[in-house]
Amino acid sequence: MKIDILSLFPEMFKGPLESSIVGKAIESKIIDVDITNYRDFTSNKQHHVDDYPYGGGAGMLLQAQPIFDALDYVEKKNDGLGSVILLDPAGRQFNQKVAEELSAKDHLTFICGHYEGYDERIRKRVTDEISLGDYILTGGELGAMVIIDATARLLQGTLGNKDSAPGDSFSSGLLEYPQYTRPVSYRGMDVPEVLVSGNHQKIAQWREYESLRRTFLRRPDLLAELELTEQQKKILDEIRGNTRK
Amino acid sequence: MKIDILSLFPEMFKGPLESSIVGKAIESKIIDVDITNYRDFTSNKQHHVDDYPYGGGAGMLLQAQPIFDALDYVEKKNDGLGSVILLDPAGRQFNQKVAEELSAKDHLTFICGHYEGYDERIRKRVTDEISLGDYILTGGELGAMVIIDATARLLQGTLGNKDSAPGDSFSSGLLEYPQYTRPVSYRGMDVPEVLVSGNHQKIAQWREYESLRRTFLRRPDLLAELELTEQQKKILDEIRGNTRK
Repeated sequence: MKIDILSLFPEMFKGPLESSIVGKAIESKIIDVDITNYRDFTSNKQHHVDDYPYGGGAGMLLQAQPIFDALDYVEKKNDGLGSVILLDPAGRQFNQKVAEELSAKDHLTFICGHYEGYDERIRKRVTDEISLGDYILTGGELGAMVIIDATARLLQGTLGNKDSAPGDSFSSGLLEYPQYTRPVSYRGMDVPEVLVSGNHQKIAQWREYESLRRTFLRRPDLLAELELTEQQKKILDEIRGNTRK
Repeated sequence: MKIDILSLFPEMFKGPLESSIVGKAIESKIIDVDITNYRDFTSNKQHHVDDYPYGGGAGMLLQAQPIFDALDYVEKKNDGLGSVILLDPAGRQFNQKVAEELSAKDHLTFICGHYEGYDERIRKRVTDEISLGDYILTGGELGAMVIIDATARLLQGTLGNKDSAPGDSFSSGLLEYPQYTRPVSYRGMDVPEVLVSGNHQKIAQWREYESLRRTFLRRPDLLAELELTEQQKKILDEIRGNTRK
């Protein structure tokens, strides 16, 4: 997958793109990331990329010109831009479904804003506006990193263990059950007996129950979106009976 | 504000903590960030931090011991841990309110997991579990960076222009109105006339209308949470009449 990033702070990507899973995906050429600093495309002598908003108000806005010209450059170089993604609080909410959708694309181009906001005309070149969540960041860079991380780990070959991706929270629609590893007893806290029983059927039942219970207690909204099996409905009735919320 | 981060990938923070607003907040000593690699606290000779899950299943789990011992070390050094935040998909959803809440604290300690998940007993040391949104990342590092960015920009002295933070999307409960900066005409796209009229009352009206319109079209769920003024209700009726959704 080809990934282009337009940013005023290319150095921000240094750690995140060099380490961990995304770093490995770049090394193994599963993804190919290019960062373009659109400050290099300003047509004014001072290399300003921002200016005051028309109509007054606090803060500065990114101008359309440097971003349009940087997009032209990236488009020519790659014979296209793929999906042009703007990180913006007014965009659609990023979630695991969007990550899956993006992981099927050949080319993503991210526009990372900074400062107060940007000239509205920039949206005309954009094909997808995405928000990480209902919070404000100082720029789009971290948003692009998050989306790249969540997307890249879904690409074949990125994760070492092929089974790791599909078992996660959200891919089943439920939160994950509690998990334990060695030792059996640590600082007075013990692993639930069933998990060391060797009884695989009981372990599977315990996990389904705990997964449903955690989702019921913490994210009942996720349950409402699922088509539950008869077995799951029965377990939920039991959980409702046992649990004072 | 004191910030401690427990991570297996301290180098991931290099770019994000050195650049832009967060970098400046560190330089001006508004925040003080320490990263502790909990791999340094493993009690086994191979410096492993993870092991297989009890009860079987794919992937590896972080063990409690290295994280507990690293927390002990940070706690002793700082005479406390402040809020101990675990980045986890099952945590409460991060949003602007949570950022405001965290920005009032003196000390935040982030635990960044990695790999498939972690031993459930780690939650016993945690006072706050936070999720960035309904998506899976390869680790908690980017989540910690996002939370630090959103929180640090709310601290006094972080943003250059004091007026910048309160005018954002979400702080008013509405999405931001479209904004424009120079030039008036660019690639055939013009700034709306009202914004260059110099009529401040009309500009304010246009902005309120557009802010409500964008929120109505893109995030009607935000409107449901607001106590609208009579004026805003009137504008919304007009928008509903003019807009085919």
